[in-house]
Amino acid sequence: MRTLLARPAMFAVALALAASARAEDPLPSWNDGPTKRAVLDFTRRVAEPGGPDFVAPADRIAVFDNDGTLWCEQPMYVQAVFVKDRIRAMAVDHPEWKDLQPFKAVLEGDRRQLADLGEKALVDLVSTTHAGMTTEAFDGLVRDWIGAATHPRFRRPYTRCVYRPMVELLAFLRANGLKTFLVSGGGVEFMRVWAEPAYGVPPEQVIGSAIRTKYELIAGQPALMRLPEVEFIDDKAGKPVGIARAIGRRPIAAFGNSDGDYEMLRYVTAGAGPRLGLIVHHDDAEREYAYDRDAVVGRLARALEEAPERGWVVASMKTDWARIFPEDDAP
Amino acid sequence: MRTLLARPAMFAVALALAASARAEDPLPSWNDGPTKRAVLDFTRRVAEPGGPDFVAPADRIAVFDNDGTLWCEQPMYVQAVFVKDRIRAMAVDHPEWKDLQPFKAVLEGDRRQLADLGEKALVDLVSTTHAGMTTEAFDGLVRDWIGAATHPRFRRPYTRCVYRPMVELLAFLRANGLKTFLVSGGGVEFMRVWAEPAYGVPPEQVIGSAIRTKYELIAGQPALMRLPEVEFIDDKAGKPVGIARAIGRRPIAAFGNSDGDYEMLRYVTAGAGPRLGLIVHHDDAEREYAYDRDAVVGRLARALEEAPERGWVVASMKTDWARIFPEDDAP
Repeated sequence: MRTLLARPAMFAVALALAASARAEDPLPSWNDGPTKRAVLDFTRRVAEPGGPDFVAPADRIAVFDNDGTLWCEQPMYVQAVFVKDRIRAMAVDHPEWKDLQPFKAVLEGDRRQLADLGEKALVDLVSTTHAGMTTEAFDGLVRDWIGAATHPRFRRPYTRCVYRPMVELLAFLRANGLKTFLVSGGGVEFMRVWAEPAYGVPPEQVIGSAIRTKYELIAGQPALMRLPEVEFIDDKAGKPVGIARAIGRRPIAAFGNSDGDYEMLRYVTAGAGPRLGLIVHHDDAEREYAYDRDAVVGRLARALEEAPERGWVVASMKTDWARIFPEDDAP
Repeated sequence: MRTLLARPAMFAVALALAASARAEDPLPSWNDGPTKRAVLDFTRRVAEPGGPDFVAPADRIAVFDNDGTLWCEQPMYVQAVFVKDRIRAMAVDHPEWKDLQPFKAVLEGDRRQLADLGEKALVDLVSTTHAGMTTEAFDGLVRDWIGAATHPRFRRPYTRCVYRPMVELLAFLRANGLKTFLVSGGGVEFMRVWAEPAYGVPPEQVIGSAIRTKYELIAGQPALMRLPEVEFIDDKAGKPVGIARAIGRRPIAAFGNSDGDYEMLRYVTAGAGPRLGLIVHHDDAEREYAYDRDAVVGRLARALEEAPERGWVVASMKTDWARIFPEDDAP
């Protein structure tokens, strides 16, 4: 930077070149090809006033899955890492957890045992780590954690394990008047803390799974207390339900990466007029991970199989993406 | 109009005068006085860059109750009229309703009997009229009904029984970067149909009571079926909960008219930084209705009593509003 600033003329030229490249290509991290063309064409068609596929601005709504679609979900969901870290931190005050399931399995890092304990164990863990505090206290816990935790393989904060091509795509859609929403199986209050800086998506455009909250006066001050009760699971057939309850109209574009997004893709792309469904296919073990039909986290089978007949675009991370993460070198 | 157009110079002068009046006064239907000043001052303070009370645009969120705050809720809630009209229309195919409660009471217009039947009767009526169809079919029913129904006293569509001063206020807040939401005990899908044309509030910024929906394939097409089960009641202590689940941050301004808004007003105005709480007081029997402590619909007692100590502004329809409805003569 210092070198560039010492040579203002060259710096200006570099900036101008970068700006011109951006002006020509709103998706510089996508390689040229049919996938990129499909995304560009759809977006321009719906935004072209007077065009045959023009969509009124109010109806230009796009929905994005989060885990595996906008950021890395391997080797385990980021929110699961948060749960594990919270249990370890809380264990200091709970010596009895050493011999008590499901805490024992978490403290010993025994994922097989945890899986054997089933759904009840997960609910117990979420209740313990996500409830019994105000919404503001929970926000603070997530904020502190996400600011400090790092991905075990990529050795950087999880918010830098977002997919650069998708962040470009979110911005490109918004520049063309589409309103972008997250629709994720993850916890809504967990995502809302960092979704705006990471993706430019404000809290009120984040839809996710939720636990109940209750209005209470705490020391005379109104607050919302988080209760250990699941209110809503925003996954699979729950995704269209979550869209209907929060947005109230059918989006025109949906982006996912797993069978958890199948119903959302179907619901969105079955509407009248121009529609876009896109699946991020994890086929790049070298730069990220490669998984689909046999995955435990992010299983993709039915949606991939039906993609051709339903007109869903499959984006190959390996061939369609010039880079994966924000810090990756320019192509 | 023809006369004016025949005199272009005079027409231009009239337009310029009107524009200049608007530029000076964004709330022309509010009489000058402390209420209007409080609203103007708050809005300008939070939107003034560099000012001591500046609020970042993302945090500039305002929430509005609907019934009695933005439109007329007397002599009965508009949605209750919709229920009554639906029951009457459906009764053609249900001759047994003549002798079956709660339908009998509705068909006979017996409000006392209906009140005696209690909450279960209301749930039955809502289930019968609001469920058992897709979200799109329900939208169509509401759209048709609201386009045809008229207020029994004012003899105009309900969407013309909105309060002009409040519509001006919504627009003024938005012009100053506030995002406006409805937070109403009314049904969310009922309001979403007409809230955007009436108030400029899009469906995704409407929060309300809701019944459950379920994703289904109907003749092979994905749809959301409305189930006869209450999912959420967005009233009283439910309003802060509804705000938290849909918006995910605490608004800075709240507008209501009844004790159903008490918890919302407390939650919103207890936050740090500049806050505005405002209560619309129905004290104008001549131009609208006069009611508060003893009302069946829209009871206002506790919130009115505590307004001074909590710093909530009480807007008198009689003295603060120069006109009530959109078609009223200019003051």
